[in-house]
Amino acid sequence: MESNNHQALIQKLLNCVLACEHCATACLQEEDVKMMAGCIRLDRDCADMCTLAARLLQRDSVIAHQFLLLCEEICRLCADECGKHQHDHCRQCAAACHECADACHAHHTPVTQD
Amino acid sequence: MESNNHQALIQKLLNCVLACEHCATACLQEEDVKMMAGCIRLDRDCADMCTLAARLLQRDSVIAHQFLLLCEEICRLCADECGKHQHDHCRQCAAACHECADACHAHHTPVTQD
Amino acid sequence: MESNNHQALIQKLLNCVLACEHCATACLQEEDVKMMAGCIRLDRDCADMCTLAARLLQRDSVIAHQFLLLCEEICRLCADECGKHQHDHCRQCAAACHECADACHAHHTPVTQD
Amino acid sequence: MESNNHQALIQKLLNCVLACEHCATACLQEEDVKMMAGCIRLDRDCADMCTLAARLLQRDSVIAHQFLLLCEEICRLCADECGKHQHDHCRQCAAACHECADACHAHHTPVTQD
Repeated sequence: MESNNHQALIQKLLNCVLACEHCATACLQEEDVKMMAGCIRLDRDCADMCTLAARLLQRDSVIAHQFLLLCEEICRLCADECGKHQHDHCRQCAAACHECADACHAHHTPVTQD
Repeated sequence: MESNNHQALIQKLLNCVLACEHCATACLQEEDVKMMAGCIRLDRDCADMCTLAARLLQRDSVIAHQFLLLCEEICRLCADECGKHQHDHCRQCAAACHECADACHAHHTPVTQD
Repeated sequence: MESNNHQALIQKLLNCVLACEHCATACLQEEDVKMMAGCIRLDRDCADMCTLAARLLQRDSVIAHQFLLLCEEICRLCADECGKHQHDHCRQCAAACHECADACHAHHTPVTQD
Repeated sequence: MESNNHQALIQKLLNCVLACEHCATACLQEEDVKMMAGCIRLDRDCADMCTLAARLLQRDSVIAHQFLLLCEEICRLCADECGKHQHDHCRQCAAACHECADACHAHHTPVTQD
């Protein structure tokens, strides 16, 4: 189960990487590039963070779980920024970042049971 | 179609990254680590190469297609080395590398039509 | 001054990346690879973390300073593990990790003035 | 000597990474971001390629020398694009890329002796 949870989280991290890479490239082709500068910067950070998060998890790194805390944060920042724009790539990226942030959060938060 | 092809290739590249990360970690826990040294080294290179290949493709980099030539080569080297060992993680890694190498090859080779 | 501090820290991060890459490769060639497994794993994590830390700092990422907290931790873990071994590459790696951890610490800790 | 050559090349690769990271961030803050889109894209690719090149060299990867051929190419493309702009960060980046491309070229080209 733990392992399945890891795999689901890793898939969300990799989806987020791909959404951020696509969004950054598409933002650079928009008419209003200047308005997209914040988005491009966060896409880049978020893609780099989620890539490393996925690899640290997959290799069972001692630092993986702490890394998810920070990964959640950059995903939320990127989701907020992309969420301000109407471009399809931004909306898709915001959704992928949001889903990834929630998955990171669920993972580093202990589940309490009755 | 082109875009779908990209997505299928990107998935194979990311599968290969995950297989290599898992294989390297598992090799380091085997009794016969010394025998696995070559495998660990190639796993690492292959994971790094396939990660960058996936990201370059997703961002439509001008260098992406040439990169696949080199990516195919490291995947074949890693598949050959992992294929020498009987551990499950090595066999799974060899299969993922082989599949990824073939996908890279198909992508950088022009399809001739009648 | 701030910028100079950044540059000095970035150099220590990159030195640490190179020391970890060299140490992992050299560990895999030692007679006693099995004893070096923990070292190889931490070298890999530390090299990946310090690489991203240097790049996030250089690009003025909003997440850079928080990242240094986690980077310090992996550097200390790697320094401790490498410090247990007598190989030259381990001793050099332990020194580079230790120096890098201190530089990360100095950077994310506010300097109090009279 | 070989090892010293490696270290000099690795330093140029890492200088190029830092120049590209800085240039991309600075381009995103320029008034004329739209004009800088090509520069930002190549900066990103070049930073990623040079980072991996330095690490593959440092770990004595079997693929390192072939990788330098491709690394030279992205460095030349990035130097050409940055060279079109008058911003200080572009000029500095063009110089770092050009120097790095030459170092990659010298490294993968055999030296003939009389």
